[in-house]
Amino acid sequence: MEIHVVAAFPNLLSSALNDSILKRAQAKNLVSFHFHDIRDYTTDKHHQVDDYGYGGGPGMILKPEPIFRCLEDIYEKFDLKGTPVTLMSAAGEVYTQKKAIEYSLREKMVLLCGHYKGIDERVITTWVGEEISIGDYILTGGEIAAMVIIDSVVRLLPGAISDIDSAETDSFQSGLLDHPHYTRPAEFKGLKVPDVLLSGNHADIDNWRLQQSLQRTRQQRPDLYEKYNLMY
Amino acid sequence: MEIHVVAAFPNLLSSALNDSILKRAQAKNLVSFHFHDIRDYTTDKHHQVDDYGYGGGPGMILKPEPIFRCLEDIYEKFDLKGTPVTLMSAAGEVYTQKKAIEYSLREKMVLLCGHYKGIDERVITTWVGEEISIGDYILTGGEIAAMVIIDSVVRLLPGAISDIDSAETDSFQSGLLDHPHYTRPAEFKGLKVPDVLLSGNHADIDNWRLQQSLQRTRQQRPDLYEKYNLMY
Repeated sequence: MEIHVVAAFPNLLSSALNDSILKRAQAKNLVSFHFHDIRDYTTDKHHQVDDYGYGGGPGMILKPEPIFRCLEDIYEKFDLKGTPVTLMSAAGEVYTQKKAIEYSLREKMVLLCGHYKGIDERVITTWVGEEISIGDYILTGGEIAAMVIIDSVVRLLPGAISDIDSAETDSFQSGLLDHPHYTRPAEFKGLKVPDVLLSGNHADIDNWRLQQSLQRTRQQRPDLYEKYNLMY
Repeated sequence: MEIHVVAAFPNLLSSALNDSILKRAQAKNLVSFHFHDIRDYTTDKHHQVDDYGYGGGPGMILKPEPIFRCLEDIYEKFDLKGTPVTLMSAAGEVYTQKKAIEYSLREKMVLLCGHYKGIDERVITTWVGEEISIGDYILTGGEIAAMVIIDSVVRLLPGAISDIDSAETDSFQSGLLDHPHYTRPAEFKGLKVPDVLLSGNHADIDNWRLQQSLQRTRQQRPDLYEKYNLMY
């Protein structure tokens, strides 16, 4: 998979992605990251990427020209024709695990990050194929949202995490929240691991875990519980 | 505000937080960050923070002892009594802008990040006061989720962004998605800024923006639109 990120602050990403699973996934050639700094596509001496918004009001808007130039350049250079530009946007479709799975099947992605108050609408109408929101809250910029997308997608690439089953038993993958986990020691400060998990009886363990998942989902996320019940 | 992050990979955070608005907020003493590496609280020579889960199944679980030791230590050292431990968890309450505002009023926060498959449940039952999820998708670890929380909260601290109105007119703050933004040039590649934004008539501009917000919310997020209509 080839992931391009177009941003005003790409360093924010490149440092964070240089870690853990994402680093291993790059080393294994499962994914390649390409960070494109829109500042490199400015033509004025101050490398200005933002400007005041028309119509007044607070906050700076990312200018259209550097982003147009950047996208034109990378679409040609990296042969991205047919790859949609995915804008990180609070107004986008809400990101879910289902979307992460869908993205993980793509060969190429182009993630466009807004910053400051917003991005000139002409970039969106001309270039953006889809808008995605990681949740109903506001971030300083799309860079952190892109990080969320990248992390959640790359871990689903075959070979990215040592045991793919681990991803398949995650919360949401089944439609339910995950059950509790315990590791050694079996007793710690008087707190014991539930007997069933030490029993070696796998049917009992599976049943306990399902009941815990159901109970936790019903209590903490009645919306997911209702959907799950409609499915099964 | 004093923010503590307890994590297996705190470097992931410290590098990303060293940027932009968050850096300025630290420089202005609006917030101080304290990263605590649970590896520093291991006692074995391999500094092992994870182990296999009881009951079988794929994925590693964060061990209870280092996290207990870390939390005991920092609660004493930083006088955190009364501050809840906030666990980054897919099973948590779904994070929203309303929660960000609530968090921004706190004096201290302790964010606990899971990693790998999960965290020993005894940590949760003993220490965790609240669980929060940034969305219905799975991340490699809670570190990126903590980054989302921190970014969304710190930008709300008075003085963090140059113009506080900018935060007040964000998407979600009003219950609606944000309207389109335009900046110079007024015409670019034949694409024009809507006339109303150049009119100087602020009543017209406000009305246009509200209509755009309403229309966008109705089309892209009917769930928010319905809530908004119930409120007004």
